[in-house]
Amino acid sequence: MKAVGVIVEYNPFHNGHAYHLQAAKEIAEADLTIAVMSGNFLQRGEPALVSKWYRAKMALLGGVDIVLELPYQFATQKAETFANGAVSMLDAIGCQSLCFGSESGDISTIIKTVNYLEEHKEQYDESIKMNIKTGVSFPKALSLSFQSLSSIENIMSLEKPNNILGFHYVKAIQQQQSSIIPLTVKRKNADYHDEHFATETIASATSIRKALFASEENNSAIEQYVPASTYILLKEYLNEYGNFHGWENYWDLLRFRLLHSNPAELRDIYEVEEGIENRLMAAAIDSFTFKEFMEKVKTKRYTWTRIQRICVHILTNTKKEDMGVSLEKAAYLRLLGMTTRGKDYLNKNKSHFKLPLISKLSAYKENDISLDIKASRVYSLGIGKQKGINLLHQEYKQPPIFIK
Amino acid sequence: MKAVGVIVEYNPFHNGHAYHLQAAKEIAEADLTIAVMSGNFLQRGEPALVSKWYRAKMALLGGVDIVLELPYQFATQKAETFANGAVSMLDAIGCQSLCFGSESGDISTIIKTVNYLEEHKEQYDESIKMNIKTGVSFPKALSLSFQSLSSIENIMSLEKPNNILGFHYVKAIQQQQSSIIPLTVKRKNADYHDEHFATETIASATSIRKALFASEENNSAIEQYVPASTYILLKEYLNEYGNFHGWENYWDLLRFRLLHSNPAELRDIYEVEEGIENRLMAAAIDSFTFKEFMEKVKTKRYTWTRIQRICVHILTNTKKEDMGVSLEKAAYLRLLGMTTRGKDYLNKNKSHFKLPLISKLSAYKENDISLDIKASRVYSLGIGKQKGINLLHQEYKQPPIFIK
Repeated sequence: MKAVGVIVEYNPFHNGHAYHLQAAKEIAEADLTIAVMSGNFLQRGEPALVSKWYRAKMALLGGVDIVLELPYQFATQKAETFANGAVSMLDAIGCQSLCFGSESGDISTIIKTVNYLEEHKEQYDESIKMNIKTGVSFPKALSLSFQSLSSIENIMSLEKPNNILGFHYVKAIQQQQSSIIPLTVKRKNADYHDEHFATETIASATSIRKALFASEENNSAIEQYVPASTYILLKEYLNEYGNFHGWENYWDLLRFRLLHSNPAELRDIYEVEEGIENRLMAAAIDSFTFKEFMEKVKTKRYTWTRIQRICVHILTNTKKEDMGVSLEKAAYLRLLGMTTRGKDYLNKNKSHFKLPLISKLSAYKENDISLDIKASRVYSLGIGKQKGINLLHQEYKQPPIFIK
Repeated sequence: MKAVGVIVEYNPFHNGHAYHLQAAKEIAEADLTIAVMSGNFLQRGEPALVSKWYRAKMALLGGVDIVLELPYQFATQKAETFANGAVSMLDAIGCQSLCFGSESGDISTIIKTVNYLEEHKEQYDESIKMNIKTGVSFPKALSLSFQSLSSIENIMSLEKPNNILGFHYVKAIQQQQSSIIPLTVKRKNADYHDEHFATETIASATSIRKALFASEENNSAIEQYVPASTYILLKEYLNEYGNFHGWENYWDLLRFRLLHSNPAELRDIYEVEEGIENRLMAAAIDSFTFKEFMEKVKTKRYTWTRIQRICVHILTNTKKEDMGVSLEKAAYLRLLGMTTRGKDYLNKNKSHFKLPLISKLSAYKENDISLDIKASRVYSLGIGKQKGINLLHQEYKQPPIFIK
C-alpha cells in the first residue's frame, strides 16, 4: 500500500483541505493518506477551535486514513522545527511521499530554492544577522535577506507562508536523509491569512474561524465552505462543550500566572527572552481582554505570532529545559484516529515503523509525551468546568477514533 | 498618650470585637487603640471576606485608632509566627500594652503556663515528637503533650484557639524582650469556631461569614451581630465589587496552577512537604469545587487549616526562599488607616518608632513588601475582572484611610 503524507492543523477541516487531499492522492498515486496534525495548540500560538479528537474525526470523515498528533514541542514552533517534527513522523510511518499546498505550486522551484540557499548559507545567514540588527522581526529579516538574493532566476517567493513551510519540509527531508518524495499542489484561491470569504466554496480557515466566533450559535455562514461532516461536528462540539476555544477563554488564567510570577520564573519559560517578561507582566495588570493585552505587548521586533507562542508556553508552563528534548525528530507516533483502510495499513506495516506507535496513553510512560498531556490539561480549562473535566478525561481514556 | 494594642483579623468586624476593644481600653487605661490586622489572606489559609481596606474602615468606625497591616509572611502562619510578627509591630509602634481575648481570661495563668513550659521545654518537645510519630497532626500532638503535663495546678487549657494565641503573644513578648504588658479579656459567649449564632448580639465571625455566604444579597440575618457601620460597609462592598471573597472564587485559578505544574515546582512552595504535592495535583483533576478538592486531600495528619495555608501559598506563588526573610520580627509598619486621634499619636511619636512606617507604597521599595503586593494582586482575581482591576489599583494608590 502506497501512502501519501500531509501536514495539517485542520482548524477546522474545510473544502480547501478536502480538495488538497484529493489532489495529493492523485499526484502521489497513493492508496491512502496519512495526516500529521497539530494537537490542541497550534503554530500561531493559539488554542485550536475544537479539540484534537473532534478535528481528527473531521479529518477521517474528510478523506484522511490515519491521523497522528504532531507533538506539542513541534506544533507550537517556527516553521523549521514544525517541519522537522512532522517530516520525521511521516518518514517513520513509511510514507512514500509528502504533498503540501504552496503558493508556488512548482516542486522543482522549491527544491532549487532549498539547494541554492544551502549553497549560499553563509552569505544568507550573515545577511539575516545584519537585518536583525536594524531592529526588525525575525520573519521580516528573513524576507529582506531573501530579497537581496532573489535576483537569481527561478527562485520562489519566501514571503508566502505556505511557500516557507514547503521550503522547510523539503529541507527537513534532505537533512533527515529521508526517502520521502516531496510533492506540491498549488493552493486554490484562498490566501492563508484571508479574513474574508473569497469564493463560493473555498475559504481560509482564518475567515471560517472569524465567522464562527462572530456568532457561535448561528454557524450557517460557514456551511458552504466546509464538508457537511465538519459542519455537523462543529455543532456537536458546541452542544457537548458549550463553546469553541479561543485565547479569550484562557485570558483569566494567563493573567493570573503573569500576576503571581517573578520575572526570573518567566525567564525559565521557553522563548521568553530579552526582558519580554517585564513587558508581559506590566501589560497583564490592566488588560481586560487578551486582545487588549496583546496590543500593549506587541512591538516591531516581537510579532503577534511570536508573543502568542510565548503566551502558550506560559499557559502550559513549558520551560526551556522541558524543550531540551530533541527538536530535530519526533520520538513517538501518537495515533488519534484511522479508517478501515488506515487500520489495514497499520497492521501490515507496523513492524517497520521507526518510532513507537501509541494508541493507548497508559501503555506509554515516557517523559516526552508529558508536554502533550499538560497541553491537554490546560486546554480543558477553556470550557465550563464539568465539561472540561470530561474533556480532560478523554486525553487519558479515548482510544483512537475509528471510522469504517 | 497611652496606646493599647490588639491583634485582629476582623473578618468581619462584629459586636464581640467592639466589646473587646472597649474592655481593652478600660483595663489598659489607654487613650487609644492600635490594631495589627491581617491583610487579604488569613491565618486559617483563607481569603478575607472583604479587602483589607474595607476591614480597616470597619475597624476605625468600630473604635480602633490606628490600623497596621500584618504582613503576609506572618498573617498566613501558625500561631507562633503569627504572634512574633504582630507583637514586634506593636512593640515597634510604642504600645504600652497588648490586650487579647482568651477563653481563660486570667493573664497570670497564661504567664505561668508560658514560664512552666519554658522551664520544661525539653520534656515537652520530646513528648510532641513522640506524639507526631504516631501519625497525628501537629496541633493534636501539641494538645496531647500538654495534657500529659497538665496535672500541674493553675495551668490553662492549650486546646482553646484563643488561649493558644494568647500563650504565643506572651511568649513573643518575653522572647523579644519587649516592655509590652500583656492583658487579657475573657471572650464573651461565642466560641471561635462556632458555626451557629449563640446569643442575641454576639456571634462568632465564622457564623457571620456562614450566613453571609448563604445569602450574599440578603444580609439581614447578621444585622444584630455587627455594628451598623460594618453592616453598611458589607453592603457597599457587594455593590462595589459584586461578591465576597471565598475559596470557591479562586478555585479555577488554583486548579489551573495545580494542573500545569511539575511536582518539583510545587515542592518549592512554602510548607509543601512530604509528597503532599502529588496528592494535591491528583485531587485537582476531578474536583468541581474547592470544597470537593479539600475533602479529597484532607488526612489525619494534614488538617484542613494546614492544607488551606499550603493552597494560599500556591495561589500566591510564595516559595520557601521567599519566606527566607525573618519570621521572628516584622520589617515595616504598613499603615492602612487612622482616626484623628491616631494621626495625632503618629505625629507625636513617629520619631521613636523602631520600624519604618509606610503610608505610601511607592515610597517603600524594599523587597519584603513584595509578598503583600503579590497577595493583593492575587486577591483581586476573586471578583469580576474590571472590578478586580480597580481593587488591584487600590493597593498602589490608596492613601491610608482617614476617619475624623
